[in-house]
Amino acid sequence: MSYQAEIIAVGTELLLGNVANTDAQYISEAISAVGVNVLYHTAVGDNPKRLQDVIATARQRANLLIFTGGLGPTYDDLTKETVCQAFGLELEFHPEIVEEIQHYFDTVFRRPMPECNLQQAYVPTGCTIFHNPVGTAPGCAFEVGDTAVVMLPGVPRECIYLTDHELVPWLREKHEGVILSHDLHIFGLTEPKVQEILSDIMDDAVNPSLAPYAKTGEVMVRITAKAETEADCEALMAPLLEQVKERLGTYLYGIDVKSLEDTVMGLLKEKGMTFSTAESCTGGLISKRITDLPGASQVFLGGIVSYTNEVKMDLLGVSPAILDLHGAVSKHVAKLMADNIRRFTGSDLGIGVTGVAGPDKDDRGNEVGTVYLALGTKDTIACMQLDLGTGRDRVRTMAAHHAFDLLRRFLTGLPLEGEYDG
Amino acid sequence: MSYQAEIIAVGTELLLGNVANTDAQYISEAISAVGVNVLYHTAVGDNPKRLQDVIATARQRANLLIFTGGLGPTYDDLTKETVCQAFGLELEFHPEIVEEIQHYFDTVFRRPMPECNLQQAYVPTGCTIFHNPVGTAPGCAFEVGDTAVVMLPGVPRECIYLTDHELVPWLREKHEGVILSHDLHIFGLTEPKVQEILSDIMDDAVNPSLAPYAKTGEVMVRITAKAETEADCEALMAPLLEQVKERLGTYLYGIDVKSLEDTVMGLLKEKGMTFSTAESCTGGLISKRITDLPGASQVFLGGIVSYTNEVKMDLLGVSPAILDLHGAVSKHVAKLMADNIRRFTGSDLGIGVTGVAGPDKDDRGNEVGTVYLALGTKDTIACMQLDLGTGRDRVRTMAAHHAFDLLRRFLTGLPLEGEYDG
Repeated sequence: MSYQAEIIAVGTELLLGNVANTDAQYISEAISAVGVNVLYHTAVGDNPKRLQDVIATARQRANLLIFTGGLGPTYDDLTKETVCQAFGLELEFHPEIVEEIQHYFDTVFRRPMPECNLQQAYVPTGCTIFHNPVGTAPGCAFEVGDTAVVMLPGVPRECIYLTDHELVPWLREKHEGVILSHDLHIFGLTEPKVQEILSDIMDDAVNPSLAPYAKTGEVMVRITAKAETEADCEALMAPLLEQVKERLGTYLYGIDVKSLEDTVMGLLKEKGMTFSTAESCTGGLISKRITDLPGASQVFLGGIVSYTNEVKMDLLGVSPAILDLHGAVSKHVAKLMADNIRRFTGSDLGIGVTGVAGPDKDDRGNEVGTVYLALGTKDTIACMQLDLGTGRDRVRTMAAHHAFDLLRRFLTGLPLEGEYDG
Repeated sequence: MSYQAEIIAVGTELLLGNVANTDAQYISEAISAVGVNVLYHTAVGDNPKRLQDVIATARQRANLLIFTGGLGPTYDDLTKETVCQAFGLELEFHPEIVEEIQHYFDTVFRRPMPECNLQQAYVPTGCTIFHNPVGTAPGCAFEVGDTAVVMLPGVPRECIYLTDHELVPWLREKHEGVILSHDLHIFGLTEPKVQEILSDIMDDAVNPSLAPYAKTGEVMVRITAKAETEADCEALMAPLLEQVKERLGTYLYGIDVKSLEDTVMGLLKEKGMTFSTAESCTGGLISKRITDLPGASQVFLGGIVSYTNEVKMDLLGVSPAILDLHGAVSKHVAKLMADNIRRFTGSDLGIGVTGVAGPDKDDRGNEVGTVYLALGTKDTIACMQLDLGTGRDRVRTMAAHHAFDLLRRFLTGLPLEGEYDG
């Protein structure tokens, strides 16, 4: 079967604007990658009559209907009932789902399971159950004639899990043809710059296709091929992939990787090295981002967040004379921070960041966005001056990006970008 | 007129999952606040035939159709043409819009205006033009019979601007009545618990209505009233608001506030007090969250992220004997961390957090989710043991929530929740 999909989100909270429909985005991206054509997104409230009408409309214009939300244990969760009614199916009680829900309450919530959760153990007769280890609402899939129907929980974490672990494998079996993508992650170039570098090959690329996407301070280029098999897709992509890699050079920090920090963690593990941080304007963001990752304790020893000059002096050993002479936002202080945190923690590498995140200039007239970033090793200390523009969140995010990129460049033996002095 | 709305987003990038439909969320929240009932969201690709069908369906089920996207200058921007065709209107050229676009190119892009942008100076005959000073695509609104139609650009920044400055004022004139809401922010109770506490009054509440929403570890209750004027809304809400406040007691941490950390920052400023942090399992998340806020330097001095025992010893002055005797994840260590960071930084209050974020138990067999949280003042140190379940992100987020709530309770003279010893 070749599928044309409509994704139907059920939940009044979407229509009130309390949350964005990120489930539809996630599912769309995931199933587009399998080759499914998504034609419509619809959101409707917790209202059975309107949901019925939406289902009737969707059946006329799509042959894969994916519902999200309304699988919870409360009275306004009515997706299963309404969908079953529309497709002439009954709901069937599954004791093994009760056990799963019970297990979730025992191990995660650590409180008794309320009776209303039993409602979640009913699924359409004859469906494929999408078991849910990260929540209490199972998903499911079934086919009626030429139409396939899927129901997923609306809680984003659960929806994402079941999309990756159940929906996509289920579709790979059902859907004809294969689409494969590779994501090339870039740091240090703007999106227009990437477009300029790749414009000629981007315009000509159809299968495989080539498209850039921008995130805060990062750019991602996706190369996508459609073919009979995965091997055919890879073969189609290989020459273009080589060409793009060559043009992006050292700005390309990874293919199909999760993030800069994840890449850095991998490199540190590979080399058996550790780092530590002394953060001023980023206020703990760098250590927060590395410790978001399981296994961070192998590569990250700890850090100091110095939000005042006193803390820079007392905890980080930056002398009052240096602070007085150069100011807290200076190359000298960044370098001392990097060197001292490395020595204090005994890590192989030390990162020091000091700058002005805003909203205002600092007391020495340094503009918002001025950031000094230093990397200390046992042999040397490199420091770069960054001008990260305005916007507190942006300055902090970019400073943290640059810190991880600096580590990456050092760990892969690349030349450091920007104005350095050693 | 009383409006029932459908928000129709046009753009293939939504169906590919490249972006989330945040415009629909923003518009929904803004127009719900005016009293408009949003019944449906729809997203469709840059395809005139499908867009025509979507318009036909929408006209049957809503009397306010709000389109976003497809107002750009390129060949695949076809919203205006398709909508005009559906409603039997012509497009009309407006030289004053050309001037606005020209001005935008001169002052913002600082490059010549391409000819294709002239396309954006056409709007439906007789419409109200929504002038756009933050981009090149104007929005517009018109009425045909009992149906109102609005078109807004899809770029979120432009969509938000025109929603606030044009759409909402336009609707306030057209739409009958006013809706007002207050958001009550709660920490320390689960959503089922809040529902239980409020169930009888929630069921009876129609105008004002009462609805709970859950975020990770937090609950928000929204009370909403509909009336002729804002004052009438407030008068309708007042008695219920009092009743809900009384029932929620000290779990209610704020009304119409931004976050726990923002509330804590306000309290600290009020009292002229400062704090500092010693973080283990949260890895800098607490200091990251407080320094997300502009003005944090008035209340936050800094902190230490101690991800290893060595850092706990060397930087935080936790003795090897204590670590050996009680383990790093223990009440004793949390209390020492809180006390020492307070003394080292000279802050009024010190927060110490140590625990197991996962994915695995620690080497002493402490379960994932076991967290010790301590608050040190110059007079005393309180410590609580938390069991935060599983999931690395969840454990870390909840531990940081609890840290801010602990500060809030202390600063407002409330009894500390949970098992404390002083």
